[in-house]
Amino acid sequence: MPNAEHITQTVHRYLDLVATGSADDIAALYADDATVEDPVGGEVHIGRSAIRGFYANVENVKAKAELVTLRVAGHEAAFHFRLTLDFDGSGMVIEPIDVMVFDSEGKIASMKAYWSQADVTPV
Amino acid sequence: MPNAEHITQTVHRYLDLVATGSADDIAALYADDATVEDPVGGEVHIGRSAIRGFYANVENVKAKAELVTLRVAGHEAAFHFRLTLDFDGSGMVIEPIDVMVFDSEGKIASMKAYWSQADVTPV
Repeated sequence: MPNAEHITQTVHRYLDLVATGSADDIAALYADDATVEDPVGGEVHIGRSAIRGFYANVENVKAKAELVTLRVAGHEAAFHFRLTLDFDGSGMVIEPIDVMVFDSEGKIASMKAYWSQADVTPV
Repeated sequence: MPNAEHITQTVHRYLDLVATGSADDIAALYADDATVEDPVGGEVHIGRSAIRGFYANVENVKAKAELVTLRVAGHEAAFHFRLTLDFDGSGMVIEPIDVMVFDSEGKIASMKAYWSQADVTPV
């Protein structure tokens, strides 16, 4: 199973890629049969291909991602981060708490993002 | 299903009770067949009776619980809080991120607490 250091590194890499990486790069962090629910309560994207499609929606948006706080426990992580999105001048800040479960190979098996419109601020 | 206001109120009540309430009061927030995994990766307590026993361990410890930040999404909540425990002079601060799933009656169906020794500070 992945150790805390691997999980911590993957969370940091995930945030770097969400800010400046490609949908392919982000999808490669996930297991083949992974699931993404972002936000929680919304559609669940199942499998790496669907997950790649989900991230492709924001691939070309100028973004900055900053980790606020991270907890690693067992083979899971929970982290609060700040995502600043710049849509050609009009921007917004979203501050989700994400939860990731990792599989035995250290890939992300599931991701759930806890946020709602109440956590979105125009900037 | 419970709305965001109910979930928010229950999280606040949970923290109040963790600080100053009884194990019975805390257990009453949970569904009959609820599960508690605290910390994630540790033992899973199944059912309200086992959950009551888990909280009874810290029932008589002087404690303070402060919400740092809360996200409500779907019928779930994720929140970062600061728990200060005072064991007759020697104290510690733990800062978990907890995730709760709520059932259709607004009871807590599951709680998972994300923290490790790295998130415990002696005071």
